[in-house]
Amino acid sequence: MQYPDATVQEIDNIMNEAWQAFGEFRLTTLKQRADLMRAIAKGLEAAGDGLIQTAMRETNLPEARLKNERIRTMFQLTSYADACEAGSWLEVRIDTAAAENPDTRKLQVPIGPVVVFGASNFPFAYSTAGGDTATALAAGCPVVVKGHPAHAETSEQVARIISKAVADAGLPKGVFAHVHGAGFETGKALVTHTHTRAVGFTGSYGGGKALFDWANQRKQPIPVFAEMGSINPVFLLPGKLKESAKDLATLLAGSVTLGTGQFCTNPGLILGVEGEELDLFIHELGSAIGKINPGTMLHPGIAKAFAEKRTTALSQANVETIAVAAVAPQENQGAPTIASASAEAFFKNPLLHQEVFGPYSLVIRCKNTAELIKAARHIEGQLTTSLMASDNDLIDNPELIEAVQDICGRLILNAVPTGVRVALSMQHGGPFPASTDSRFTSVGADGIKRWVRPLAFQSWSDALLPDALKNSNPLKIWRTVNNELTKDPI
Amino acid sequence: MQYPDATVQEIDNIMNEAWQAFGEFRLTTLKQRADLMRAIAKGLEAAGDGLIQTAMRETNLPEARLKNERIRTMFQLTSYADACEAGSWLEVRIDTAAAENPDTRKLQVPIGPVVVFGASNFPFAYSTAGGDTATALAAGCPVVVKGHPAHAETSEQVARIISKAVADAGLPKGVFAHVHGAGFETGKALVTHTHTRAVGFTGSYGGGKALFDWANQRKQPIPVFAEMGSINPVFLLPGKLKESAKDLATLLAGSVTLGTGQFCTNPGLILGVEGEELDLFIHELGSAIGKINPGTMLHPGIAKAFAEKRTTALSQANVETIAVAAVAPQENQGAPTIASASAEAFFKNPLLHQEVFGPYSLVIRCKNTAELIKAARHIEGQLTTSLMASDNDLIDNPELIEAVQDICGRLILNAVPTGVRVALSMQHGGPFPASTDSRFTSVGADGIKRWVRPLAFQSWSDALLPDALKNSNPLKIWRTVNNELTKDPI
Repeated sequence: MQYPDATVQEIDNIMNEAWQAFGEFRLTTLKQRADLMRAIAKGLEAAGDGLIQTAMRETNLPEARLKNERIRTMFQLTSYADACEAGSWLEVRIDTAAAENPDTRKLQVPIGPVVVFGASNFPFAYSTAGGDTATALAAGCPVVVKGHPAHAETSEQVARIISKAVADAGLPKGVFAHVHGAGFETGKALVTHTHTRAVGFTGSYGGGKALFDWANQRKQPIPVFAEMGSINPVFLLPGKLKESAKDLATLLAGSVTLGTGQFCTNPGLILGVEGEELDLFIHELGSAIGKINPGTMLHPGIAKAFAEKRTTALSQANVETIAVAAVAPQENQGAPTIASASAEAFFKNPLLHQEVFGPYSLVIRCKNTAELIKAARHIEGQLTTSLMASDNDLIDNPELIEAVQDICGRLILNAVPTGVRVALSMQHGGPFPASTDSRFTSVGADGIKRWVRPLAFQSWSDALLPDALKNSNPLKIWRTVNNELTKDPI
Repeated sequence: MQYPDATVQEIDNIMNEAWQAFGEFRLTTLKQRADLMRAIAKGLEAAGDGLIQTAMRETNLPEARLKNERIRTMFQLTSYADACEAGSWLEVRIDTAAAENPDTRKLQVPIGPVVVFGASNFPFAYSTAGGDTATALAAGCPVVVKGHPAHAETSEQVARIISKAVADAGLPKGVFAHVHGAGFETGKALVTHTHTRAVGFTGSYGGGKALFDWANQRKQPIPVFAEMGSINPVFLLPGKLKESAKDLATLLAGSVTLGTGQFCTNPGLILGVEGEELDLFIHELGSAIGKINPGTMLHPGIAKAFAEKRTTALSQANVETIAVAAVAPQENQGAPTIASASAEAFFKNPLLHQEVFGPYSLVIRCKNTAELIKAARHIEGQLTTSLMASDNDLIDNPELIEAVQDICGRLILNAVPTGVRVALSMQHGGPFPASTDSRFTSVGADGIKRWVRPLAFQSWSDALLPDALKNSNPLKIWRTVNNELTKDPI
């Protein structure tokens, strides 16, 4: 099914409606918002097989994966709903009047309408009812989603589920809207509209950076949280490599090709120190990759981009192709591929740092651990870095640990980067260009913080304060009162 | 004393040194950072009268004010030191392994070297050892201050105090550096240097916006928290105005002229509904202002800008001059001035929304409360808004309360905006153009959040985790473990 791009006039109407709805939605209780989120989760479940079939048709993703992704999306909605109601994210701080100082009380308030750009690779979890939408609703912000054109019908169906939940809750229609747009103009009109107050995005560097620039060039700049991809370097430390070169190869072959490599946490770069253990690892990795069948990619555009970027990467000077899947790829399939290059080549050629979105990884052969450290310092911002290391490896390499911390949002020990736990302790985001603001996450209930700002009330009447700030603590939430965390009333 | 602008080469050396120092400083304990901050506070006190005399000579501010400002600055350093040590700002979240989910643990880590641009109007509290520097040191970030050229010698003396405290603590010299720069080039070189990771600024819209744009145009954009001024609208609601027109006039005359109007929280706009009460208020305000003597401004540039902006504002169509100080201003003095205009004129002429930095305020006469609300919706982002209102006024005007919340960071009831309490519950910042990111504050220990980012550790060995994340909770800080706030070990 084809949907026409929303016009500038339609976007203007939708953003005005979102702004109108904000006046009412911001005043909803935490429970009302949590219930809305839970109703959306129930709606996703109730959509049953039909929704999964649509998504399968549009994304080429297998049924089991999409069913799991829907469960994950429902868990995001319901667990963030619990966090919404618990209210810690309101970050209430109260300082009662003292000496010449007035009573001041602060809480987080919603920033206003949020525009969300869904990802192509997660039609549920990072799209229309995904983490950005869930956290923005928790914050009390109306949401306008631009559905990803690669799964427009899935997005449309999910949008109807959300709109129905909004209507059933008796909330104004403008709390949620959905538009289509395959072109550049729709995105620009959404980001530059005067009533848009923040933007969430998951996708390519080019797309995210364009939104970031438009947002900053507005008369009133607005925050953009864009997650723009990552090559998720994996460092193989000598002790660990010696112990388990073969197991590491098996583990990484699985991670590189999981979901046909179409995860933002796909390990696109593997670094180790030259020697027979690394040779063994490369050999084993190559042999495992050769046995993995090509998979159909999300859509023809992504398959084409993978083929082109892979060809470009493999044709660089001093890049050696280690292994390609033995089975030839069909149309729109991506062939699992491993290449290798020296650290020297890696330092010289920035193209080797670029993401090849799909089942591809480049093994970098360093001369020694000093070169591993140099590489860590050389790599741009990442969502994750993984260290495959024994405890002794870690103790022996404090400089490497420091260097890898600087370039990532999540530091993994002896595990692959694919698989992102939905939990408060998760950080999904990282130094630029992994994301546009390393101070925020797009996974976990802390993602709510992207859509709120502090508002302080000074010398206000207790009866007229928001409930979260009232003396009696009617919401029974944790608050910092005169620098002490407490649930006690004042 | 004249100081030459730092050259690009000098800035490169300083930023490289800051980056080097970051490696060691980030590993310091919270207690070490807190002790450094306390030592700086002691150093400020030990500098005694000499420092005050220098600041008096450079800023024309009176002795008592500067002594109080130094006490405030010391309180910032010591109270933020206490917050640093208490560690709540680390926002530790731990989710232990469960089913197929790995153990993940997150804390806030320092973002890297921070460049601070001091304000002209607070030579201590918002300058070299001010809130930006204090919060960045608490976070574990090296600081490079560009001293304000209007009080370069004061800044130099304070910088020596900080550098001595750094040396006495045995920390690397690069933890703190101080440069001079009256020109555009110094600021640009600092903001665009590859090792600069964040920027703090207090000053004009033009200055702050330039830094923001440079920072966003970098290859790796960095966050800028710029506080860029505000006209701090004060809304006079009918019930309150009827009760106490005269008292309000006295209160506001004091606030408009406090410190010769050179506060970012100066009330530059007062709005009320036409009628005899507003006439009385205007009359009383004018008569109070007429009796207040002109004060010497911070430096000739500010006095000149005040004179020019005041002249421009008063010469606008439909702007009436209500009162000017009876005593004529001497050279570099600012004459207290009150003007008035209709809401209609205010809506038509954006120049009337602009800050006239100094002892000036514009009273807007609205036809009715609908026009008050319209004005509230029309005004750009502000640090504060004040409502002078009885409880009934508030109950009768929910739309106005909603509208004023949208445009400010701090909402004040029946008090003037001047006077910013240093407390965790303070919000000093607001929607653009009051600041470049409404999600952060520059006053209160929450200001630390500007200079940190979350880092998650996955499946890490307990012994090798940062202390804040270890099972035993050796720092005895509040942590969110499996979604529950606790100080218990795991």
